[in-house]
Amino acid sequence: MRKLLLSTAIGSLALMGTAYAGDDSAAAIADVKFLVDNLWILISAALVFIMHLGFASVEAGMCQRKNTVNIMFKNVFIVCIGAVGYMLWGFNAMYPGFEQAAGSFFAMGSPIEAGFSTDAAIKANLTNEYADYTYWSDFIFQAMFAATAATIVSGAVAERVKLTSFMIFAAVLVTFIYPITGSWEWGGGWLNGFGGENSDDTAQFIDFAGSSLVHAFGGFAALACVIVLGPRLGKYTKNGTKPILPSNLPLANIGVFLLFLGWFGFNGGSVLSADAAGVSHVFVTTAMAGFAGGLAAIAMSWILTKKPDLSMALNGMLAGLVSITAGAGCIPPFYALIAGAVGGILVVLAVNFFDKIKIDDPVGAISVHGVVGIWGTLSVAFFGSEALAGEKISFSAQLIGTLSISAFAFITSFIVFYAIKLVMGVRVDEQEEHEGLDVAEHGVPAYNDSAN
Amino acid sequence: MRKLLLSTAIGSLALMGTAYAGDDSAAAIADVKFLVDNLWILISAALVFIMHLGFASVEAGMCQRKNTVNIMFKNVFIVCIGAVGYMLWGFNAMYPGFEQAAGSFFAMGSPIEAGFSTDAAIKANLTNEYADYTYWSDFIFQAMFAATAATIVSGAVAERVKLTSFMIFAAVLVTFIYPITGSWEWGGGWLNGFGGENSDDTAQFIDFAGSSLVHAFGGFAALACVIVLGPRLGKYTKNGTKPILPSNLPLANIGVFLLFLGWFGFNGGSVLSADAAGVSHVFVTTAMAGFAGGLAAIAMSWILTKKPDLSMALNGMLAGLVSITAGAGCIPPFYALIAGAVGGILVVLAVNFFDKIKIDDPVGAISVHGVVGIWGTLSVAFFGSEALAGEKISFSAQLIGTLSISAFAFITSFIVFYAIKLVMGVRVDEQEEHEGLDVAEHGVPAYNDSAN
Amino acid sequence: MRKLLLSTAIGSLALMGTAYAGDDSAAAIADVKFLVDNLWILISAALVFIMHLGFASVEAGMCQRKNTVNIMFKNVFIVCIGAVGYMLWGFNAMYPGFEQAAGSFFAMGSPIEAGFSTDAAIKANLTNEYADYTYWSDFIFQAMFAATAATIVSGAVAERVKLTSFMIFAAVLVTFIYPITGSWEWGGGWLNGFGGENSDDTAQFIDFAGSSLVHAFGGFAALACVIVLGPRLGKYTKNGTKPILPSNLPLANIGVFLLFLGWFGFNGGSVLSADAAGVSHVFVTTAMAGFAGGLAAIAMSWILTKKPDLSMALNGMLAGLVSITAGAGCIPPFYALIAGAVGGILVVLAVNFFDKIKIDDPVGAISVHGVVGIWGTLSVAFFGSEALAGEKISFSAQLIGTLSISAFAFITSFIVFYAIKLVMGVRVDEQEEHEGLDVAEHGVPAYNDSAN
Repeated sequence: MRKLLLSTAIGSLALMGTAYAGDDSAAAIADVKFLVDNLWILISAALVFIMHLGFASVEAGMCQRKNTVNIMFKNVFIVCIGAVGYMLWGFNAMYPGFEQAAGSFFAMGSPIEAGFSTDAAIKANLTNEYADYTYWSDFIFQAMFAATAATIVSGAVAERVKLTSFMIFAAVLVTFIYPITGSWEWGGGWLNGFGGENSDDTAQFIDFAGSSLVHAFGGFAALACVIVLGPRLGKYTKNGTKPILPSNLPLANIGVFLLFLGWFGFNGGSVLSADAAGVSHVFVTTAMAGFAGGLAAIAMSWILTKKPDLSMALNGMLAGLVSITAGAGCIPPFYALIAGAVGGILVVLAVNFFDKIKIDDPVGAISVHGVVGIWGTLSVAFFGSEALAGEKISFSAQLIGTLSISAFAFITSFIVFYAIKLVMGVRVDEQEEHEGLDVAEHGVPAYNDSAN
Repeated sequence: MRKLLLSTAIGSLALMGTAYAGDDSAAAIADVKFLVDNLWILISAALVFIMHLGFASVEAGMCQRKNTVNIMFKNVFIVCIGAVGYMLWGFNAMYPGFEQAAGSFFAMGSPIEAGFSTDAAIKANLTNEYADYTYWSDFIFQAMFAATAATIVSGAVAERVKLTSFMIFAAVLVTFIYPITGSWEWGGGWLNGFGGENSDDTAQFIDFAGSSLVHAFGGFAALACVIVLGPRLGKYTKNGTKPILPSNLPLANIGVFLLFLGWFGFNGGSVLSADAAGVSHVFVTTAMAGFAGGLAAIAMSWILTKKPDLSMALNGMLAGLVSITAGAGCIPPFYALIAGAVGGILVVLAVNFFDKIKIDDPVGAISVHGVVGIWGTLSVAFFGSEALAGEKISFSAQLIGTLSISAFAFITSFIVFYAIKLVMGVRVDEQEEHEGLDVAEHGVPAYNDSAN
Repeated sequence: MRKLLLSTAIGSLALMGTAYAGDDSAAAIADVKFLVDNLWILISAALVFIMHLGFASVEAGMCQRKNTVNIMFKNVFIVCIGAVGYMLWGFNAMYPGFEQAAGSFFAMGSPIEAGFSTDAAIKANLTNEYADYTYWSDFIFQAMFAATAATIVSGAVAERVKLTSFMIFAAVLVTFIYPITGSWEWGGGWLNGFGGENSDDTAQFIDFAGSSLVHAFGGFAALACVIVLGPRLGKYTKNGTKPILPSNLPLANIGVFLLFLGWFGFNGGSVLSADAAGVSHVFVTTAMAGFAGGLAAIAMSWILTKKPDLSMALNGMLAGLVSITAGAGCIPPFYALIAGAVGGILVVLAVNFFDKIKIDDPVGAISVHGVVGIWGTLSVAFFGSEALAGEKISFSAQLIGTLSISAFAFITSFIVFYAIKLVMGVRVDEQEEHEGLDVAEHGVPAYNDSAN
């Protein structure tokens, strides 16, 4: 039967049938538009999914060979536990619904609605918020986002964190902490509509796809963990900082390009429909900010170190992308170039700065996602168009928003990770760190070159 | 002219013109809906295509360095010959059309219709089965599926199979054998509508995207080949099983994540339209089963071996995906978690079991695709909703369906591969196996680290 | 607010509102169709983007380990500068608008329109050419194309080109030279509508997605650079040609499959709408030509060298894809098999030929893109259907078109690259070449295997 089972049962004919039969073509047109919008959210979810491979590959490529298995294991675990935790708690904590959420700070989570549902045609029937996509599409798109925050932390603590301790931390971060700040803005909480204390009543915090809610959140959670954890052995010596070389730059290159690809879904899907003007605009601002960030980081690092630095070029592209994530929908294309370029310069400076103050972040996650996440949020105030945003923009709303999210991520992560440290420790022992976590913890090297 | 040639000639204006001119807006709406549905089938075909890179990368990463070129060469050949063979024979053998197929066991193949056609607007004119997509979309989506079965076998026989013998076997398997079992269900053959012998007349075999028709088929074909071929030299010794370490786990990690990505097209495209309720549901069940499979395999292998095992985590995600492939359209999301988790546990047990009975499967293909393929098919009976499936579900129909497909794959593969063994041998000689197939057969190593 | 900001502001309700309210459902239907078409162009842009990772991975995998960082740095730079240059000059030079372009040879560039625009709903308002997608979609899709030409050159000059010299050349090539030949056909210049000197007035040059305008252009630019640059040290000795082994074939395999995936957007997006008949046809011809190219190159190289050659199999797939790029829209599927197979044979012969005449091209770029690019363009005359093309096809128009584009690419590249050679040199010194560019120019190896 050419696998027609499903579409016969729940499919398109049912969806469109009545509209065709009658003369209400507007409803039939809306149904088709719904198909397109929903499909784009799902494709975006798939694109965001592949960012997890991107993160794992960047991190494994940038770190030492002897810790590669450990890094990939962490990443596999994070995406799995992140999505499951989000299904069972986080989604409803982040999106508690308008009545409960309005202006609030915190909501309890719970398993998603309709988890046992046999009604496939879930779309507008749970709430009437879903104008352009189904409840399932909303969930899976947001679930793919959720795990990215913990993955950002993974890179910063790599090569010396104790596996089980990190697994517990990551599960808590994704399931319980990330949805809290997420609810502040996207869930309708206190930051949503925030801005009343400014002279301009209607200005509000704008974070289109998460420069603050995802990236700065992850970056400052990472900073807290790195402070609790301390630097890798031998990184900072009396004789200065010892460079620890990346083990596999082609792998890091694959990772960054996959992240760039995924960002078309991360930002593009955050239009929350296939709206032609909106998605096209977001594709252009996203890509051009990424490219400008790459060029600026190449130039900046070349000036500072007199060398063409591939790692900085790659981090510059990521920084450009983070820079535009808050304002992808409201910053005109030429300003996106500027926002991205500033991000690319900032990341070079920030990486050097953190090394100077002995904050050891093997992949530069705190710089790329934390520092540049704040920049991206503020750049909305500098470059955003109120006509495109559809609302007033104010610097103070952006500043208060990004600082409160970053501070909350930092403080809660510090508390949780420190508590784990007290209870069970967060760091592998010295011998294990020297030997590498792959053989010590996992019993297998990532690369086995012998002929056996 | 901004590359407008094609669209001028055959394009959208022609498609929609008449509907616009007249007052029959229902036809115009149906035409746009057709665009969306068709586009999703094509995007799904592209996603399934990338699974071939996933298979090649998993297999190369999990095997020894010295056989890497050989593995990738096999995979390139399989996807090429698979699609060409499917175009010239398999597609019509698998989908012989309803009149010929009804209740039958076997149909002759032939080249696809309209291979020389200059009528670009092929859609509903060859048959009237194509409500939602063109004939070409149907063909290319199914062609991308076809080669996966042989690729599954490739992993199980890796590191000792004779290249030319395997090339012949793979070509026969994809072109002639796979379409037979495929036709039983998807082509309208005897399994389609099967279930009459049960007390419940209307129950029928359900295999949404191929837990049995693709995965169990490939897994049991692999089992037959491995029995004919025997284990790798030195794998099973008097002193027990010798672990053979994977050569490149980051490559395997890339492979598994690309397979996961491709599964959104493999299952999502099997809705056979962009139906919002259907595709959204399938995305959620597919992803969550994969994540649950990863978590369950992590837990199970940690319990058994006291170590966090990356290979098992990766195989667990794949097992979760195989588990939901038969029921992605009719299993509610929370049950998808359970189905996937059981798959993740099963794959750990099965890998150990096959090692114990000295069935040497370097990548665990028989476990992931064969054993879990059967589980996935049966899980429809445990967890599937008849409301979602749109038909009665019975355990016996699922059992008979999956066993008959698996048995047919096993027996025919055994016969064909054994015949090839008699005629020309199926195994490289001992020295070649020690030396590695890359240099011995291909004259070049996969990795060349020297400075030249 | 579930991130509804953008869609509220500029979104779908506004787009569709009036149509719903009134009785003009034709306009509402056209709006939805516009959504679908536009979305496909954007998804295609993302697919073409990932080709840049494909190019980088193929090139890095095929070259020596010691030059890997240099190769990836070049590729990151090219995609960044290519897109920015295209935004600030190239796009308007390539598409100067119909009035200025008609029949012309050259147009000045300028920054894209509306770079500071706050009108998100840019679609049909800049020109009336955009029937099926927004101005931004047009730009970003074409921008992703633009950088590929310079990337093709990158592979041919790898392992001995001076980085800064190449960066300047690549920037000039993408920004200033590529748009000139691009404008000849796609921009409405002299090749568009060309064919009047033939007996048949209406025949014109056909290059659907760029066998000539992208691939032959890049291939012959590469040939010019390689002639100026000379072969790698020690490649051609008195005792014959020294084989230089690829450093990482799994990386090359990843690269080729990602290029193949991206080609679905490269060719599929060139339909310039989601037209069902058009895109389906293009997917089938594109994929089948690639598969046939792989099989033919496997057979041809096996006959010549008596070995199954993975590099040739991979180059054969690419050659098949290049072969069909000019005629993907007008060549029937079975002829696509033939066109691709001829491409696969040609690439094997061409690689051997260039080695014989001591043109040292480490990745075979001149063969794959240059020689086969010409073949692909000519194959339109052999296999193209005028019914599908919607216009007359003539061999002479195809020949004159491809030769003039290839010659222009060769001559201008030769002049520019030779001028750079005179001013600052184009080649690293001998010691650097021996040592490898990674450590010498970038100060870091691509792979660091030590335990640190």
